[in-house]
Amino acid sequence: MEERDKAKIAELAGGVAAGNGLLDRRSLLRAGVLAAGIAGIGAGVAQAAESVGADAPEWMKTPGRSFSPYGMPSKWQEKVQRSFTLLPGRPGTGTSRTPLHLLEGTLTPNGLHFERHHNGVPDIDPNRHELVIHGLVKRPLAFSVETLMRYPMESQIHFVECSGNSGSFNQREPQQTTAGGLNGLLSCSEWTGVRLATLLGEAEVNREAKWVIAEGADAVAMSRSVPLEKCLDDAMIALYQNGEAIRPEQGYPMRLLLPGFEGNMNVKWLRRLKVMNEPVNARDETSHYTELMPNGKARQYMFLQGVKSAIIKPSFGMNMKGPGFYEVSGLAWSGSGRVSKVEVSADGGKSWAAAALTPPVLSKALTRFRLAWQWDGRPSTLMSRATDEKGEVQPTRSVWVSQYSPIQFYHFNGIQGWSIEADGTVKHVYV
Amino acid sequence: MEERDKAKIAELAGGVAAGNGLLDRRSLLRAGVLAAGIAGIGAGVAQAAESVGADAPEWMKTPGRSFSPYGMPSKWQEKVQRSFTLLPGRPGTGTSRTPLHLLEGTLTPNGLHFERHHNGVPDIDPNRHELVIHGLVKRPLAFSVETLMRYPMESQIHFVECSGNSGSFNQREPQQTTAGGLNGLLSCSEWTGVRLATLLGEAEVNREAKWVIAEGADAVAMSRSVPLEKCLDDAMIALYQNGEAIRPEQGYPMRLLLPGFEGNMNVKWLRRLKVMNEPVNARDETSHYTELMPNGKARQYMFLQGVKSAIIKPSFGMNMKGPGFYEVSGLAWSGSGRVSKVEVSADGGKSWAAAALTPPVLSKALTRFRLAWQWDGRPSTLMSRATDEKGEVQPTRSVWVSQYSPIQFYHFNGIQGWSIEADGTVKHVYV
Repeated sequence: MEERDKAKIAELAGGVAAGNGLLDRRSLLRAGVLAAGIAGIGAGVAQAAESVGADAPEWMKTPGRSFSPYGMPSKWQEKVQRSFTLLPGRPGTGTSRTPLHLLEGTLTPNGLHFERHHNGVPDIDPNRHELVIHGLVKRPLAFSVETLMRYPMESQIHFVECSGNSGSFNQREPQQTTAGGLNGLLSCSEWTGVRLATLLGEAEVNREAKWVIAEGADAVAMSRSVPLEKCLDDAMIALYQNGEAIRPEQGYPMRLLLPGFEGNMNVKWLRRLKVMNEPVNARDETSHYTELMPNGKARQYMFLQGVKSAIIKPSFGMNMKGPGFYEVSGLAWSGSGRVSKVEVSADGGKSWAAAALTPPVLSKALTRFRLAWQWDGRPSTLMSRATDEKGEVQPTRSVWVSQYSPIQFYHFNGIQGWSIEADGTVKHVYV
Repeated sequence: MEERDKAKIAELAGGVAAGNGLLDRRSLLRAGVLAAGIAGIGAGVAQAAESVGADAPEWMKTPGRSFSPYGMPSKWQEKVQRSFTLLPGRPGTGTSRTPLHLLEGTLTPNGLHFERHHNGVPDIDPNRHELVIHGLVKRPLAFSVETLMRYPMESQIHFVECSGNSGSFNQREPQQTTAGGLNGLLSCSEWTGVRLATLLGEAEVNREAKWVIAEGADAVAMSRSVPLEKCLDDAMIALYQNGEAIRPEQGYPMRLLLPGFEGNMNVKWLRRLKVMNEPVNARDETSHYTELMPNGKARQYMFLQGVKSAIIKPSFGMNMKGPGFYEVSGLAWSGSGRVSKVEVSADGGKSWAAAALTPPVLSKALTRFRLAWQWDGRPSTLMSRATDEKGEVQPTRSVWVSQYSPIQFYHFNGIQGWSIEADGTVKHVYV
C-alpha cells in the first residue's frame, strides 16, 4: 500500500491508536474508512454492481419450504458443530467444545453450549425429579419442578467456563488449532430461575452453616462443596436457558448456577443441597479441579475464573486475504465482574490500543471487543489483554506457567497471541 | 386465608402495593415472604424432606448418553413448539408463533423464533448470494457473504414483531387461547451484523435520496420501502442470530434488521437495496400492512411498533393452584426505545402497582416484568400497562379499536387482561 493511502486511512479513521496499523476504535462509526481501506487492496472487496435483477437465482423461481415446529440451522452450516474430546471406551466422559471461531456476538446457541460430563447425560423425568435442601437447616424441604415454577424468578446473562478451558497452554509448544479448540469450554447464556437465597431462606439455615454440598442426579452423582456465602449471593437454581427449558446437556430439568465460579461447580441435574459446616472433599475437588503447585502440593477450592480474553477474528484457520482493512474482534470475560478494558496489540506487545466493548457490558458475561486494523501485509503478532472492574489484568503466559507444576492446567488465563505470516496464514504463538 | 396471615405477609413483603393482593416489588428479595405465603396455602408447596438418597432414581444407576454435535431440547419438552396458521393449499404462506407461554426470560431460542413467510423458506446457497446496493448512489456495489464478513460488526438485542401480532383483539369476543397464541408473532434475539450506514457510506448516497427499497430473495421477492433516515440510523444487515448464523426461517444468509419497525419490513433473504427518492408502493405496503380507517381510507407507512405488554404468567391454560403466593410476570416492549414502567392491576384497573423490570432494560428489546401477588382465591382480573421512555402509554382496547375500521387488525397495542375464576381457571377477557 502507498504511504499516501495509509495516511488517508489514518486521517479518516481519526488517527492511529497503536503500532502496526491499529486504528482508533471510534473509526468504526465513520463512513469512508472502509471505502479507503478496502478499496485500497488489490482485488477490491465490494464489487461494482453493473446490472441487477436480470438473473434471478433458482430459489426465487419456486416456492420455498413450509413452516417447522422447531427450527434448525441451514444445511450450509453443518460444519458448525461442537468438537469432542472423549475418554477411550467411555462415551459419556469428556468434553465437547463450543466452536467460538464460527460464531459471532456474545450468546451461545443452546445447541452449541459446551459440554463436560463425567458419566453421560441422564434422561431425567421432570415429573419425578426433586431438589432437596437439608442438613443444617431448620426445615428440610423438597421441591418438585412444578413447585419451583411458582417461585419468583430472575434472569441473568452469564458465561460458564470449564476450569480446564485453555488447558493446552501448559504445553511446551502452542497447539495449532482454532480459537474454539483452544478456548471452547466456554459458553454464555441468559439463565432464568430461582435465586438460591430464596430457597435457603425458606429452609432457614442454621448459624453454624458454612458450606453447601451440591449433588447432581447423573450416574456419578457429581458433587461439589460451595461456600454458603456464594449460595446466599448470586447463585441460582436455573430452569431456563436462553428462553427455553434448560437443555439435557446443561442439566435438565435444573442446574446450579454460580456466576463466575468454575464450570464444574455449577452442578447439573441438581438433586440435593446439603448445608454443612465444612466441605466434603468430594472426588471432583480432590483428584480433579485443584491447582498443583511446583512443590507438589495442590491448592483446593480455587473457585473463581480469572479475567481473560481471546482474539477470535482472525484466528487459526482463517487466512488473511491480502493487506488492507480488517476488524480484529474477540471475547473477554471475568469471574469477578465486568470487563473494564480490552487492549489489543498488533506488534507483539510493543504497543497497545483500547478496543471498543460492545454494550451492554454485563457482569460475569462474555463481552465482545472490536478494533479496526489496517494490515500492511507484513508478519505481525496479534494479542489481547483484558482488565476487569476489580483491576485484575491478564498475566503473560510465562508468569502464569511459573506459578504451577508443569502438569497443572486448570484456570489458565494468560495473554494469548496469533501470528500473521506474510502470506496471510494465522498461527498460534506463545507471547 | 386468615386475616392475621395476610397481615404477616404484607409486613414481610414490605407492604401492599395495590389492591387485591399485589405486593411491593422489593418483596421478591426478602426471605420469609415465601415461607409465610406459600406455607400458608392448604397443601403446602415445598414438601418437608424426611430422608434423602435412599432411593436413587434409575437414571443415576446407568451411564447417561454420550455427547452430541448439535444439541436439542429434552424429549420431555416436545410440546414446546411453534404453532402454525397457514393459508389453505399454500404451505409456504402464513405464520408460526413463538410459544411465549412456555418460555421464560427475554430471549427466544432460534428454533422457536416466530415465522411469517409469503411463499416459503428459500434454500439459498450462501456462496452464490449477493447483496446489491444501487439506485441513487455514486458507486453501485455488490457484497458477497464472505465480503460482508470482513466489515466491522455490531451486536444488538432487539425484538422483531409482526404488525399483525395480537390481531385477534379486533374481534368482538376475546379469543380463548394462550399468551403465545395471542401474542406469539414476537421474538427477541441478539443480532450481529454490519451497520447499514457503513455500506451506504461506501456506496455514497446521492443528495436527492429519501427511500431505500429492500427486496428479498424468496419466491415473492418480498419488497418494502424504508425511509433512508432509518437506514442511516440503527439499521443492520444481520448475519448472526443469538451467536450462530441466522436461521433459514429468519433470512439466511442475511436479513435487514430495522429495530422497532414492523416485522415485515425487516426483509429476509435480503438481496437488493435500491436507493430512491420515493417509496415504490410494493404489494406488501398497499394491499397488506396498512391501517384501514373508519372512513374506508387506509394509512400507509405506519412503521413503528407501539409500546405494549402482556402478562404471561398466569395466562390462559395455566390453572391457579388455590389461594396463596404467585409471581405475576410478563413481557413489555416498545419500538420507540426502552420500556420505562410496567404497571400491573389485580382488580381490573381500579388500582395499579409498578412491577420490577429485569435488567438490563434495553432499547427495542423485550423486557421481563415481575410482581409478587397474594391471591386470596376470589375472582380477579389481571392487567398490565407499559410506558416507554418517550412517555407513550398503552391505550385501552376500546380506545385502540375506536381509531380504525372494524376489520383493521395491524398494530394492536391495547391493554390486555386475564380473569381468574374462583376455581383457578384463567380466561382471556377484554378490559
